[in-house]
Amino acid sequence: MLRDVSVMDLSTSVFGQKISMPVCVGATAMQCMAHIEGETATAKACQAMGIGMMLSSWATSSIEEVAEAAPAGLHWLQLYIYKDREVTKSLVKRAERAGYKGIFVTVDTPFLGRRIDDTRNKFQLPPHLRLKNFSSDDLAFSGKDFGENSGLAAYVAEVIDASLKWEDIKWLRGLTSLPIVAKGILRADDAKEAVKNGVNGILVSNHGARQLDGVPATIDVLPEIVEAVEGKVEVFLDGGVRKGTDVLKALALGAKAVFIGRPLIWGLVYQGKEGAKEVLQMLKEEFRLAMALTGCRSVEEIDRTLIRRDQVLVSKI
Amino acid sequence: MLRDVSVMDLSTSVFGQKISMPVCVGATAMQCMAHIEGETATAKACQAMGIGMMLSSWATSSIEEVAEAAPAGLHWLQLYIYKDREVTKSLVKRAERAGYKGIFVTVDTPFLGRRIDDTRNKFQLPPHLRLKNFSSDDLAFSGKDFGENSGLAAYVAEVIDASLKWEDIKWLRGLTSLPIVAKGILRADDAKEAVKNGVNGILVSNHGARQLDGVPATIDVLPEIVEAVEGKVEVFLDGGVRKGTDVLKALALGAKAVFIGRPLIWGLVYQGKEGAKEVLQMLKEEFRLAMALTGCRSVEEIDRTLIRRDQVLVSKI
Amino acid sequence: MLRDVSVMDLSTSVFGQKISMPVCVGATAMQCMAHIEGETATAKACQAMGIGMMLSSWATSSIEEVAEAAPAGLHWLQLYIYKDREVTKSLVKRAERAGYKGIFVTVDTPFLGRRIDDTRNKFQLPPHLRLKNFSSDDLAFSGKDFGENSGLAAYVAEVIDASLKWEDIKWLRGLTSLPIVAKGILRADDAKEAVKNGVNGILVSNHGARQLDGVPATIDVLPEIVEAVEGKVEVFLDGGVRKGTDVLKALALGAKAVFIGRPLIWGLVYQGKEGAKEVLQMLKEEFRLAMALTGCRSVEEIDRTLIRRDQVLVSKI
Amino acid sequence: MLRDVSVMDLSTSVFGQKISMPVCVGATAMQCMAHIEGETATAKACQAMGIGMMLSSWATSSIEEVAEAAPAGLHWLQLYIYKDREVTKSLVKRAERAGYKGIFVTVDTPFLGRRIDDTRNKFQLPPHLRLKNFSSDDLAFSGKDFGENSGLAAYVAEVIDASLKWEDIKWLRGLTSLPIVAKGILRADDAKEAVKNGVNGILVSNHGARQLDGVPATIDVLPEIVEAVEGKVEVFLDGGVRKGTDVLKALALGAKAVFIGRPLIWGLVYQGKEGAKEVLQMLKEEFRLAMALTGCRSVEEIDRTLIRRDQVLVSKI
Repeated sequence: MLRDVSVMDLSTSVFGQKISMPVCVGATAMQCMAHIEGETATAKACQAMGIGMMLSSWATSSIEEVAEAAPAGLHWLQLYIYKDREVTKSLVKRAERAGYKGIFVTVDTPFLGRRIDDTRNKFQLPPHLRLKNFSSDDLAFSGKDFGENSGLAAYVAEVIDASLKWEDIKWLRGLTSLPIVAKGILRADDAKEAVKNGVNGILVSNHGARQLDGVPATIDVLPEIVEAVEGKVEVFLDGGVRKGTDVLKALALGAKAVFIGRPLIWGLVYQGKEGAKEVLQMLKEEFRLAMALTGCRSVEEIDRTLIRRDQVLVSKI
Repeated sequence: MLRDVSVMDLSTSVFGQKISMPVCVGATAMQCMAHIEGETATAKACQAMGIGMMLSSWATSSIEEVAEAAPAGLHWLQLYIYKDREVTKSLVKRAERAGYKGIFVTVDTPFLGRRIDDTRNKFQLPPHLRLKNFSSDDLAFSGKDFGENSGLAAYVAEVIDASLKWEDIKWLRGLTSLPIVAKGILRADDAKEAVKNGVNGILVSNHGARQLDGVPATIDVLPEIVEAVEGKVEVFLDGGVRKGTDVLKALALGAKAVFIGRPLIWGLVYQGKEGAKEVLQMLKEEFRLAMALTGCRSVEEIDRTLIRRDQVLVSKI
Repeated sequence: MLRDVSVMDLSTSVFGQKISMPVCVGATAMQCMAHIEGETATAKACQAMGIGMMLSSWATSSIEEVAEAAPAGLHWLQLYIYKDREVTKSLVKRAERAGYKGIFVTVDTPFLGRRIDDTRNKFQLPPHLRLKNFSSDDLAFSGKDFGENSGLAAYVAEVIDASLKWEDIKWLRGLTSLPIVAKGILRADDAKEAVKNGVNGILVSNHGARQLDGVPATIDVLPEIVEAVEGKVEVFLDGGVRKGTDVLKALALGAKAVFIGRPLIWGLVYQGKEGAKEVLQMLKEEFRLAMALTGCRSVEEIDRTLIRRDQVLVSKI
Repeated sequence: MLRDVSVMDLSTSVFGQKISMPVCVGATAMQCMAHIEGETATAKACQAMGIGMMLSSWATSSIEEVAEAAPAGLHWLQLYIYKDREVTKSLVKRAERAGYKGIFVTVDTPFLGRRIDDTRNKFQLPPHLRLKNFSSDDLAFSGKDFGENSGLAAYVAEVIDASLKWEDIKWLRGLTSLPIVAKGILRADDAKEAVKNGVNGILVSNHGARQLDGVPATIDVLPEIVEAVEGKVEVFLDGGVRKGTDVLKALALGAKAVFIGRPLIWGLVYQGKEGAKEVLQMLKEEFRLAMALTGCRSVEEIDRTLIRRDQVLVSKI
C-alpha cells in the first residue's frame, strides 16, 4: 500500500526481446477454424500489442505468412518433432530464416491424449483447410479419411515421434542457435534434465489438461520447478490464465511470462484481429490494476510475498 | 460455561471515546441513493445506539450536515487524499471543526477496482444528488457525462492521487492532532509501515473485496496484523460482519471493534433511520447472546481461546 | 478382521447401571407434542430395550408419571437450575424419590439461543399441554401470551438462572448423592473445571447446535475433553448420532455412551412407543454390525485405532 | 518426459503367472443375472485379453464350467469359508483340480453389510438361477422364501462362519499349496497379521464400500499396507478403478495389480463376452496412454514419484 503507483512499467523481456507485458500468446493449432484470417490475425494483434506470439507447428497459416503479416512482431515456433527429422529440421530452418526468435519444443506429446469429443466427432480439418507448414497431404492432415476415430490422434501416432528422448533435444540444440524452450514440463526432475540438455527455457504446461487426466494445475507445480532450475533458464507458464491476477500470481511464483490459449481463440472467433486485441487489452488493463493495487510499479517488484497460504480457523464455541 | 452472565457489559472504546458495543458503522458512499435522508439518518441511528459512524468523503450529506443531525454522536471522517492537497486539507479541517474524532485515511485505492457492474450500468449519480463535501461539479461527481465507462472509476483516476506514499501520511499527521487510521491494510508489513509513520490505528479491510479479486478474507489476516503491531495501535476490521458471532470472532482474534457496511445500507433502504437502528439492535442482541453463551461478561474477557482450528478425522474402517 | 465375532456383547454401564447398548435417549422437551403418550411412551420403549432415558425438566409428563410408566426402567433427570432454588431442589428430590439414577444439569443455557423459527412461529405450548413437573402456570409455561416473541426464550429469561456459576454445582453436589453430569461441555478447560467441582460425568453437547451458531461438532471436540478429564469421570456425547457407525466412532474416541434426540422423536411421531422402539432397534442392529465388521466383540474392544486421519494425495502428472 | 515410449510393455505377473496388464477381474457374484452366459462369458473375455479372473464362490456358473469355457485362462477362486468346513474344503479342492492358480479368501464378511436396497427388494435369485458351486438348495441360495428381508443377508447369517479367526487361515494354508490371498484388508495391523499367518498376498478392498459405511477409499490406505508387509507378499487393490490413471496411481503406490468389478458387469450386460472384452480393452488403452504420458515403458518404472501431495495456496492481496 502507498507505494506511488502513478507511473508504472508493465514491460519485461523474453530471451532479451522486450515485450510490453508478461503475457504472450501460446500455440493453439488450426486457428483458421476460429476465423478466416487465423494465425495472421493473431500475429497482427500481438504485434499491435507489443507482445510475442508462439506459432503452432499445426498452424493453418505458414511460418512465412505469419512473419509477413506482422513483420515487426516477435514470433516463436512451437515445434513437434516428426519421425522424419528432415521435416523437423526444415521447420526450424524456415523459422530462423523468417526471423523467429525461439523454438518451443513440445515434450509432452509422444501420443495424443484421449480426447473423447474428438473421437465422437471423428475430428478432421474442414476440406478447405490444411496444416500450411507442410506440402504433402499426409503431413498437412488433409484429404484423408480417418474412419471412426479422432483423425488427430491417428495423425500423431503416424507422424510424430514417440521415441523422443533427451538426446533429441541435444540434436535440436546443435541444429540452431535460437533459444530453445521445453514445452510441457510439470516436474522438477524433468526441468533439471531439460536444463542439463541445454534448453534456454521451461514452459510449465499441462497442455490445457487434455493430455492426461489428473495432472496438477500448472500454478501448483510452478514453484518447485522455479526452485529446481536455480535461475539458470527462464521459466514460463500456461494453463488457466484468464485474469490479470492470474498473471500476477504466476509472476509472484517465479514465472518470467505467461501464455494464453483459449481466451485468444475466443477473441479471434468474436472479431478476428480486433477481437484478439481486445482480449489482450483487457488482460493488460487487469494486470496493470493488479500490479497497482499490490503496490508493484514494475514486474521486478512482483514477489513471493504476494502469495499466502490459507489458514482454516473454526470458532471454539 | 457457568460464569454468571446475568450482568453484562458490551461497551468498549475507540481512541478513548466510549461506545456501547464494539460495532460501528463504516464508510459507504452516497447513502442518499439508499434513502432520502441518507447519511443523516445513519448518523441519527448511530447516535441513538451509542456507537460511532465513519462518514465517507463521498457522502451525499456534508460533514457539517451529519454533525448537526447527530450533535451528540461520535463521528469519524473517511478520507480520500485528492491530488489537490488543499481540497484534502480542507476536508480534514472541516471535520476537526465539526467535532469529528478521527480520520480514517483510505490506503488501498490509488485506482478504483474493476467493478464490472458499474461499467455495464455506466454508473453515475442520479442528477438530484452530488457529493456534498465538494462545491465544484467536478469534485462533486455531478453533471458530467462519462460515456460508456464507469463514471466512478473515471472520477477516481481524475482526482484521486495514485502517487500516494507513506510520506503523505506524515504530511497528514502534521496536519491534524486527530487520531489517524490507515484503512485498507491486509499485510503485516504494511501494518508495521503504517505504525512507523505515525498512525493511531489500522483498519483491516479489503474494501468489500471490490478492489482486487483474490484478496484474503479480513478475518484470515487479522491475527498476523494484530501480532505485527505489537499493541502499539488499535486494530479494527471490516468485511463480512453479519452476525453477533462474527463480531465475537473478530474480537477474539484481536480487533478492538468492527465496522459494518452493507447491513447498514439494507436497514437504511428498508426504513431510513429506524431501519438502520433495527439492524444495529439485532447485531447488538446477537452479540450479547454470543458473549453470554461463551461466558464473556465484558469485551475484555473475549480471548483467543474461543477460536479453534478444525481437525479432519476419518474413520479407519 | 477375523476375530471371531459370532458371539458379541453390546452391553455397557452408566454409573454402574447396566445398559444393553451404549446408546441412550437424551432429554428432548415437550414430547406430548410428538405423540399423545409423550415421555411415558419413550420410557416404555427404553425399558423394553434395556437402555436409559434422560427426562427433560420441561417434560409434558411428570417425573413420577415416567417412573410409573416404566418401573423397571433406568431414568435420569435433566435439570435446569431455576432462579427459585426451592423449585430446583424440589425437582432433584422428586427424582431421588422416584428412583432416578442421576442428574444431568444443563450448563450451556443461561439464555436460550436465537431460534428464529420459534420467533416467527411465536412459539408456545398448545393449550392442552403444560410442563408437568410444575404446578404454577408460570413455571409450567402455560396460559400466558408472549406476544410477538418466542415464548420459550421469554420463559427462560424469566425463570432460569443466568447467574449460574460453578459454585452452584457445588450446591447441587451437596443436595444429592446421585451422580451429577455437566451437560453442554465443549471445551477441555470447562471439563476440567466441572471435574474440580465434583461432577461424576461430562456430556459433550452443543445442544443440537441451537444455542450458538458456529459451535464445533461434538465429535470434533470429544477427544480433547476425554484427554482433559484423565479418566476421572465418565464422558458422554450427544449431537448427530444417526447410525451405528456414529456410535462406534464416538466410543472409539472415548465416549462411554451416546445420547440421541431427534431420531427418537421421529419414531415417537411415527408410532409412539413402538416407533421409538423401532428406531432404537435399528440403531442397535447397525451398531452390532459396525462392531462385528470392525472386529469388536465387546465395547471394551472399541478403541482409537478405528479412527484415521485423512490423507490428501494428488497424482504428480 | 522424453523417455522413448515407442515400445512399451504393460505385462506383469501375479504369483508367477504372466498377465498382459496389471488389471484383472475381481469376484462379483451371480453374473448370470447380468448376461445369460454369466461367468463363462467373463472367463472367455479374460482369456482373450490375457488377464486373470477371480471367480466368486457365489457364481452362477460352476468352478468347472468356467475352467472349461476358458481352458487357457488364468483363474482364481474367491472363497467364503462356510460353517461346514467340508463344503469349504471341497471348493478349494475342486479349484485345484480345475487348474485354478490361487485362492482369494474373503476376510471382511462375518456378516453381510446393511444393503438397504436388497432389503427393500427382498432380494433373492431369480428362480432359474442357483449358486452353481453347490448341490443342495440351501447352499445354492435357491427355492427358499426369505420373507420381508434381504435373502442374501439371511443366507450369509445361516451358512457363512462368523467365528472366523486367523487360526482358520492356517487351516486353509494346510489344505492347499495354492497361493492364498486375504481379501478385504484395510489396516496395516491386519495386513501384518495376515502375513504372519502365511498368506501369499493381500487384496486391499472395502468390498465395494457395501460392508460398512465410513470405510476409507482403498487407494488411501494402500500405502500404509504396502509399507506394513515389507515386500514379503504381493499387494493388490480393488475399489474405484475406472480409468487408466486409476491403475497407474494404484501401481505407483505399490499395488502389484488391481481388480475391477462394476465396469466388468456393465460390459457384460451390454454385450456378454464382447462387452466385457471391450471394457477391458478400453482400460488397457487408457493405461497404456497413462504410462506413455508419464514416461513409463514398463510397469516396473511406475513409482511413487508420480504421486504428489496437494498444496493449497491463496494470494495475499
